[in-house]
Amino acid sequence: MANSFGNLFKITTYGESHGEAVGVVIDGCPAGIKINTDKIQNWLNRRRPGQSVLTSPRDEKDKVEILSGIEQNTTLGTPITLNVKNSNKRSGDYSDIQNVYRPSHADYTTHAKYGIAASSGGGRASARETIGRVAAAAIAEQVLNTLCPTIEVFAWVDSVKDIKANSKDYSSFSRDIIEQTPLRCPDSEAQKKMEQLILDVKKKGDSVGGTIRCVIKNLPTGLGEPVFDKLEADLAKATMSLPATKGFEVGEGFASCLMYGSEHNDAFAIDQKGKIYTTTNHSGGIQGGISNGQDVLIRVAFKPVATIFKSQQTVNKQKQQITFSPRSGRHDPCVLPRAVPMVEAMVILVIADHFLRHLISKAI
Amino acid sequence: MANSFGNLFKITTYGESHGEAVGVVIDGCPAGIKINTDKIQNWLNRRRPGQSVLTSPRDEKDKVEILSGIEQNTTLGTPITLNVKNSNKRSGDYSDIQNVYRPSHADYTTHAKYGIAASSGGGRASARETIGRVAAAAIAEQVLNTLCPTIEVFAWVDSVKDIKANSKDYSSFSRDIIEQTPLRCPDSEAQKKMEQLILDVKKKGDSVGGTIRCVIKNLPTGLGEPVFDKLEADLAKATMSLPATKGFEVGEGFASCLMYGSEHNDAFAIDQKGKIYTTTNHSGGIQGGISNGQDVLIRVAFKPVATIFKSQQTVNKQKQQITFSPRSGRHDPCVLPRAVPMVEAMVILVIADHFLRHLISKAI
Amino acid sequence: MANSFGNLFKITTYGESHGEAVGVVIDGCPAGIKINTDKIQNWLNRRRPGQSVLTSPRDEKDKVEILSGIEQNTTLGTPITLNVKNSNKRSGDYSDIQNVYRPSHADYTTHAKYGIAASSGGGRASARETIGRVAAAAIAEQVLNTLCPTIEVFAWVDSVKDIKANSKDYSSFSRDIIEQTPLRCPDSEAQKKMEQLILDVKKKGDSVGGTIRCVIKNLPTGLGEPVFDKLEADLAKATMSLPATKGFEVGEGFASCLMYGSEHNDAFAIDQKGKIYTTTNHSGGIQGGISNGQDVLIRVAFKPVATIFKSQQTVNKQKQQITFSPRSGRHDPCVLPRAVPMVEAMVILVIADHFLRHLISKAI
Amino acid sequence: MANSFGNLFKITTYGESHGEAVGVVIDGCPAGIKINTDKIQNWLNRRRPGQSVLTSPRDEKDKVEILSGIEQNTTLGTPITLNVKNSNKRSGDYSDIQNVYRPSHADYTTHAKYGIAASSGGGRASARETIGRVAAAAIAEQVLNTLCPTIEVFAWVDSVKDIKANSKDYSSFSRDIIEQTPLRCPDSEAQKKMEQLILDVKKKGDSVGGTIRCVIKNLPTGLGEPVFDKLEADLAKATMSLPATKGFEVGEGFASCLMYGSEHNDAFAIDQKGKIYTTTNHSGGIQGGISNGQDVLIRVAFKPVATIFKSQQTVNKQKQQITFSPRSGRHDPCVLPRAVPMVEAMVILVIADHFLRHLISKAI
Repeated sequence: MANSFGNLFKITTYGESHGEAVGVVIDGCPAGIKINTDKIQNWLNRRRPGQSVLTSPRDEKDKVEILSGIEQNTTLGTPITLNVKNSNKRSGDYSDIQNVYRPSHADYTTHAKYGIAASSGGGRASARETIGRVAAAAIAEQVLNTLCPTIEVFAWVDSVKDIKANSKDYSSFSRDIIEQTPLRCPDSEAQKKMEQLILDVKKKGDSVGGTIRCVIKNLPTGLGEPVFDKLEADLAKATMSLPATKGFEVGEGFASCLMYGSEHNDAFAIDQKGKIYTTTNHSGGIQGGISNGQDVLIRVAFKPVATIFKSQQTVNKQKQQITFSPRSGRHDPCVLPRAVPMVEAMVILVIADHFLRHLISKAI
Repeated sequence: MANSFGNLFKITTYGESHGEAVGVVIDGCPAGIKINTDKIQNWLNRRRPGQSVLTSPRDEKDKVEILSGIEQNTTLGTPITLNVKNSNKRSGDYSDIQNVYRPSHADYTTHAKYGIAASSGGGRASARETIGRVAAAAIAEQVLNTLCPTIEVFAWVDSVKDIKANSKDYSSFSRDIIEQTPLRCPDSEAQKKMEQLILDVKKKGDSVGGTIRCVIKNLPTGLGEPVFDKLEADLAKATMSLPATKGFEVGEGFASCLMYGSEHNDAFAIDQKGKIYTTTNHSGGIQGGISNGQDVLIRVAFKPVATIFKSQQTVNKQKQQITFSPRSGRHDPCVLPRAVPMVEAMVILVIADHFLRHLISKAI
Repeated sequence: MANSFGNLFKITTYGESHGEAVGVVIDGCPAGIKINTDKIQNWLNRRRPGQSVLTSPRDEKDKVEILSGIEQNTTLGTPITLNVKNSNKRSGDYSDIQNVYRPSHADYTTHAKYGIAASSGGGRASARETIGRVAAAAIAEQVLNTLCPTIEVFAWVDSVKDIKANSKDYSSFSRDIIEQTPLRCPDSEAQKKMEQLILDVKKKGDSVGGTIRCVIKNLPTGLGEPVFDKLEADLAKATMSLPATKGFEVGEGFASCLMYGSEHNDAFAIDQKGKIYTTTNHSGGIQGGISNGQDVLIRVAFKPVATIFKSQQTVNKQKQQITFSPRSGRHDPCVLPRAVPMVEAMVILVIADHFLRHLISKAI
Repeated sequence: MANSFGNLFKITTYGESHGEAVGVVIDGCPAGIKINTDKIQNWLNRRRPGQSVLTSPRDEKDKVEILSGIEQNTTLGTPITLNVKNSNKRSGDYSDIQNVYRPSHADYTTHAKYGIAASSGGGRASARETIGRVAAAAIAEQVLNTLCPTIEVFAWVDSVKDIKANSKDYSSFSRDIIEQTPLRCPDSEAQKKMEQLILDVKKKGDSVGGTIRCVIKNLPTGLGEPVFDKLEADLAKATMSLPATKGFEVGEGFASCLMYGSEHNDAFAIDQKGKIYTTTNHSGGIQGGISNGQDVLIRVAFKPVATIFKSQQTVNKQKQQITFSPRSGRHDPCVLPRAVPMVEAMVILVIADHFLRHLISKAI
């Protein structure tokens, strides 16, 4: 009951990082949607480690098989199962750490909860779990492209540690432009500094975090439910369910607390076509939990990843205090570039679900 | 389907702000829990406006009736219905604003979604909707007190606009202490400044926002599910579903982005009783989505409330551009003190739900 | 989690038979549906005991209050709460039986499950719980009347003990015609015999059961989901969740087992308007769990009610074997006439839910 | 949303009969349960066609792969994915029937609902979909064996067409005994007649139906929820969601309608160990929707299968009236023997779910 997300466009992910496979079952995808299956693999490739020197050099490949639900490039209205075999099964790779509760990893809490854990790798806490989410988003995005082609979702690296990109004028950004940059940061000045920082950190065996911004453009008005399933509440849950996230903002976010109401309120106006819009967008495109037709803007904080190659104090499974000195390995010193498609994926899943939910909110 | 929250301890709220009643049905409360029904009313009183000059002078009273589920102060295992009649039904009170899309209110988006809205008041978007949540939390807290008496949840005003309380040493705080302060801010220096600011803002007809901090003490290890229903993800959704919220943080939150992994990681250690703990708590008590036994710490941003008594540009339902100048009324210039029990309520509902969920996570 | 029914048109009922109130919250009713509120009361009156000498003489009245979700006779898209106060609260009426596990009642199993039970009356096991279901169906039927006005649902008494009505030619039946008959049985010959039997049984302090037939006419093709939520599976659950039900059939039901496939198969044909139909309807309007456009026909078995006024062996709460001789009271010797609106209500709730579900099953 | 079953022990099945694979994801299985993986394959073998001359000669093999959730024969508390590749993919096998709406099959309703259907085979309407259910039940049964080892579930062929087994004295039956009989009917007299009938019917290209009985022995008291999720309601839905089912009974079923209340009521008594039981079991082990500790007894009607090898009138996808004369093929003339494990599987899934639900129904 804990491995599903969404109400009408519902996904269930499965798989341990070092088990047989990871994947997803999508239940609730409407029938008759044309699917370009290459796009699923493209999404998985974007999520994959080993894309540049700045990220982990593992080549996990992550080749997707479609087990059900799509025939002749069309959805059947039946569950869509997307499966990715693990090439890296239960090797001894992690053997030196299997006996250790690694600091700020999920090893200890998993044991505390279940009394058992996958014998190698991070199990469900591994970032490999997000393969299912990203694969599902590749379908969800094509559903949205069919039902409401104007909607556009893209994210980018907004900051790495204290280096902030200039994200203000995001109107010139697009997923294509962002994808052409090595760190998925469209501010080239900032990107150079981030690159240098990440290489320095890598050399030291340390890690850094940062923030992702994501925008939803041309979202119709009316998406989101007014009480518990407010659009921002579902976006918060969606993104805060990604590994390593520590904060979420919509619109002005925490900065809104520093404004007077008279500054923060977004005045309504009417454009030349008679359409209502707001002259500012401090609200981030959502009012009362429901989209108002302006851009939806969110920001997500990722902590520095817990895997570092420095000596640390910790405890082993025999409850002994030990010094843990992992040998240098193949982890990202900074997950931010890979977090871009993960945040986009969760946002797209929320939008697809709310789009279907909205179809039945009023009598037709 | 949008008015329920929780999986096993599940609440459904109902009621428009100016309709007959607002309330909640709780489904999934275990049988045999002793309930002090006065505590329900106490929680509602804490939520109520009109508690001081600093908050709205309306006296809404909010007297709770128990319609089902409790007999002789004991839960029957059946749905618990808590109903509060609205004394302030569809009066002309709001008549001057019924034709206006008030800036940054839910009027416009509600119409866009449903094509209809409650004829007076904010309908479901009103803060009165939280009556059901707070009443349900009064039950949930007593369930937790029975099943795990050590758990303690309290929140306080952490900042109002740019005035920040000293929240660092929260270990001396408690709900009792906080409740004895007029603004629910245990830093008396900061509180005085906040008080002055709010009175100034009230005079100007403007509004201010701020942040709430909430802590869960003595939470057992093992609560939270490792994938989508991570404890922080559910806390984020819960609090971001409250009206006027714009941001959420757990542990170090956005500040974690400025730290190296070697600084942020929480080292495990063993105390004298052989219990594992962490020597720091940057993670905020959660790792891999599951509680680790340390304090869970969150922070929630509330924007300045949208209701102000200044002239604003907006649009009416006839799609005419107008100047909107509401007469001075009875709204809070700052909701932060009342937001304290609302945040606590949502946190308690999440904990009660995850406590029940955890009971069946391993073979007994 | 056990008191809700439906996926998109979702109801949650609450209330003990002798508590403050019983009622229902409907979540998921589309906005903008015109509601004739008198129809809610009419449905409750049909369900009510005391309608003739043949049923229980209690006059429970059951006056409905609308607490939320409807304004100016129109649904707001918000939760609709329908509340009925109990006039008959925790009186001593049931005092002689509070200490007894009445044979074939829910007293014993309720205690076994919860360790506690409502101090008087049947609690949630009472037929009063169906008030919420019937009130919700009054809304659901009006939703269907708006979205698909041709759909028609009616039920009738098909048999009482061994007296069977001639139900074969139901095409001349209608709810209006059935309602004009004292026992809701449109075969006047059979009805007279049933009436005599019930009066005899009443005199003896005994009880009888029987069967209800229900038909859904003009249901569009395509309702029902092909795997677990087959239309017949949801109809089975819906009706088998009514008190005192022991069996369910669709189409030929158990009689289908006596036919060869070549007899049972329904041949497809094309009518003069080019519409596909079946020349027979052994399937009862459903194939592969999905409606095929023909009449959906079900039959539900109700056991003789457990309340009788004869001396019986049983056990009390002190685990003593006793002889239980209830004084003659005010219960129905035969619930069949009142079961007619209950079965209709559950069928309508299933259809409303599947109608909404079907709206999102293919790309539009 | 339509391919999941269960609340806490929740399964999601996927796969078209002639696609890549069929399978199931189980979410909510407690951690730490020992699993004999051979038992999964055994269950699939029991479900498989081609077990005797009386059933379909296809050898589908149905070899299960465990993709996630189990390691070293122990559940991890994570989703368990059981996958079975289809050896019989989109061949031309069904080519002569792809253009035809076969009488009493799901072809027409699937098209009416989705506007598209799997290009060969029955898609989700095929009995191959039950592979996922049966595999999940193999896990669920081992969960029950661990948590409550006394519970025993077995089913048998109660009748084929008008040949009825003597099922009255089922206390001497067991799954082992039933499995040793060719038709899964423990009455050898009846079985011989059934066998002859099925061979005759096969020769004629026709088909027959019948009934399955299933018993749950040693079920603890307290399982089932008192309102919508009554144990019998969930058993009805579970079994009526199997292909080809037309009726469901619990306890005396439709025969209860022929009894007086004074005959049908089950008197409570106390056994020598002080345990409460009923001296008769007309209720079938459930009262008020909750198990009372006696045997739970159900009966399920299966229609004669729709696939026959006789000439039939029907319509093709071009809406032309045609005569359909399928060449003799490899289908069962009678599914009853294979329906035995399917009914058992659905019953076990219901019991496992309600067992977990009951764990949190009262304060501990």
